Amino acid sequence: MLAISQMPHRAVVEHLVRQAVYQRLGKPVPGSFAGPNPLLVNVSARHCHLTQEAAETLFGKGHELTVHKWLYQEGQFAAKETLTLIGPRSRVISNLRILGPCRNINQVELAYTDGIALGFDLPLRLSGDIKGTLGCMLMGPAGFFEMPEGVIRALRHVHMSPEDANFYGVKNGDAMRLRIGGRCGLVLDKMLARVDAAFKLEVHIDTDEGNACNLQPDTPCELMK
Amino acid sequence: MLAISQMPHRAVVEHLVRQAVYQRLGKPVPGSFAGPNPLLVNVSARHCHLTQEAAETLFGKGHELTVHKWLYQEGQFAAKETLTLIGPRSRVISNLRILGPCRNINQVELAYTDGIALGFDLPLRLSGDIKGTLGCMLMGPAGFFEMPEGVIRALRHVHMSPEDANFYGVKNGDAMRLRIGGRCGLVLDKMLARVDAAFKLEVHIDTDEGNACNLQPDTPCELMK
Repeated sequence: MLAISQMPHRAVVEHLVRQAVYQRLGKPVPGSFAGPNPLLVNVSARHCHLTQEAAETLFGKGHELTVHKWLYQEGQFAAKETLTLIGPRSRVISNLRILGPCRNINQVELAYTDGIALGFDLPLRLSGDIKGTLGCMLMGPAGFFEMPEGVIRALRHVHMSPEDANFYGVKNGDAMRLRIGGRCGLVLDKMLARVDAAFKLEVHIDTDEGNACNLQPDTPCELMK
Repeated sequence: MLAISQMPHRAVVEHLVRQAVYQRLGKPVPGSFAGPNPLLVNVSARHCHLTQEAAETLFGKGHELTVHKWLYQEGQFAAKETLTLIGPRSRVISNLRILGPCRNINQVELAYTDGIALGFDLPLRLSGDIKGTLGCMLMGPAGFFEMPEGVIRALRHVHMSPEDANFYGVKNGDAMRLRIGGRCGLVLDKMLARVDAAFKLEVHIDTDEGNACNLQPDTPCELMK
């Protein structure tokens, strides 16, 4: 299993093959396929980020999150551990996935559909910008943890390296657009560019956005300035 | 209450006022506000349509659907009656709203989010085109009704009169686009124009689409060819 997880992502292989084929044909590579890196568009289902302190309150002293699945961004993973979220109207979301590793804030990212189910008026925020937002109660096998704030709907965004930013002609914080094809395609406006040398090119949209256009692994996507 | 329900829709009043104000200012009315009718964009939550026969099997012999709320399209209403839907994997959706009056087919319209919850691979279909789709079991207070087919995700569409179609320069069956503004705005492609003299100008999108862009009553929307 370890060997498989260290193989390049399927999108990376496809990108290299596509570029090689066009080169062989002597034709220019079209659109965003011409970029230095493949474009991945991934749906983030609802999840939370925890501090080590919160993780220990919920799962027991000295507990460390365990890897369920590595994510595309280096070092990030979906943990085996899940939580129960109790909203301000005592409605519940079970099996809320935790993303690791632990961070320096506690934050829950939900879709508006989840917010409506909880009776929660979700604020639209950049991840990390949680000041003044509502909180919730989290329940784990070892106890409860009360989050005074931090329940948000995350702004849609695209992670990219400076090399990618240069290709697309954008800088950190710029708004981009993402065209998603298919029979119920759409164009997402105000896709925030987040540029960092550690980032791999990847768009994160939520389940509402993914389901609005029935995003599948083979759905064509194009990132635009 | 009857008096209120017979008043013009708020959108109609706003449209008339907006046109009058621009006329007074001696300026041209911008964009789709210049059209003969106001543009309403409404979110259709999951619902079903029933034949009279199915309604009687579910609610009892001679039962007639009762009006909970009149919809914008003339004569259409959300019924007081709701159903329980049982999917092919025995998962359940409760309180499924029925839209009246009865039709000549049974059809359930769900969002992809609902389909995923049911473990159901929803086909994307034009309303009424249900041949070869999966069915489900419906449960009402008087009995069960087995739908052999008819569970779909409806194609996004816009109802309009020939007068509206003329203004937008489209004909029945054409694909249009809808721009929805706001902080997480988007453009919905392949919005099907459905033209009929009985139709009032109204876009129907589903809950995934409405929640992807957090559509609110005051969110600016623009319908485009």
